[in-house]
Amino acid sequence: MRILGIDPGLQTTGFGVLDVQGQAMRYVASGTIRTTGLALGDLPGRLKLLFDGIGEVAARYQPEAAAVEIVFVNANPQSTLLLGQARGAALAALVNAGLPVAEYTALQMKKAVVGHGRAAKPQVQAMVQRLLQLPGLPGTDAADALGLAITHAHAGAVMARLSEVAPLQRRQHALYRAGRSY
Amino acid sequence: MRILGIDPGLQTTGFGVLDVQGQAMRYVASGTIRTTGLALGDLPGRLKLLFDGIGEVAARYQPEAAAVEIVFVNANPQSTLLLGQARGAALAALVNAGLPVAEYTALQMKKAVVGHGRAAKPQVQAMVQRLLQLPGLPGTDAADALGLAITHAHAGAVMARLSEVAPLQRRQHALYRAGRSY
Repeated sequence: MRILGIDPGLQTTGFGVLDVQGQAMRYVASGTIRTTGLALGDLPGRLKLLFDGIGEVAARYQPEAAAVEIVFVNANPQSTLLLGQARGAALAALVNAGLPVAEYTALQMKKAVVGHGRAAKPQVQAMVQRLLQLPGLPGTDAADALGLAITHAHAGAVMARLSEVAPLQRRQHALYRAGRSY
Repeated sequence: MRILGIDPGLQTTGFGVLDVQGQAMRYVASGTIRTTGLALGDLPGRLKLLFDGIGEVAARYQPEAAAVEIVFVNANPQSTLLLGQARGAALAALVNAGLPVAEYTALQMKKAVVGHGRAAKPQVQAMVQRLLQLPGLPGTDAADALGLAITHAHAGAVMARLSEVAPLQRRQHALYRAGRSY
């Protein structure tokens, strides 16, 4: 299965694409979508770049599922509002591309990638590089996006193992799975 | 010119379409896009309904410009985040339909429609009904959306008058115009 991870932001959105087959993961692509060429106040223009950028990534790499970071309320309410709008446009682009979207917190991503939820960004970058055998360290936004795709791959593997057990057990286990899928 | 007004919300989004020619305004359509059929937690699903709904309205009525309410931070940060995501998906739908988007605050809309910024919702509904000679009172969400379209029509009329004065004066006046256009 090909998974697209997205770490949304109004200025910089990270993306990462993985192929997953059983336990094996293969890096396909990663990068950032930037809106910094536009005026800070041009929110519709920025959201258009973000929306179109995600649409282009989806069209180019043809993923079958998307994993997006859940954002939380920020100490600065204005930042929360701006990030919320960026995330809304990003989710719209993914569902518009016909992708099922799973959501994970940064904590879940760090646990899946590094092993504990308090990992710093450089640790995420280093572990993503190692897990995917990348020739160099990925940028922080791309690393987070690849980390989300890895998290979704792990969650998918857990679900696949659970599907071999009894239906009732599976339902109980499903409540504890890493992310909410839609 | 045909204007589409949008009052975005995660559960209910109002829309209103007007034709404007000089001082004359003609009602075309209005209504709401609801996502209440889906589970509260299904954010991607809700944003898809909202995005697709606005796309359908734009395709059906072929507006040439959009006017959207600016949202502000709420006392409840979680509500701010949810509303921000709905607004992000709504803006993405409008720019994806190729529409230039102008943004107005509720205060600006109430001033343009009722004459003062402290108007209550029933006053906005009554004035929208009167200005557009509607046979009945529009719903609150549709009234707000039509009010935004009226506000944009007024701002457009002001800009048209200003375009008859000297370019320097026009530039100075433009700083004071009612809304930010992109």
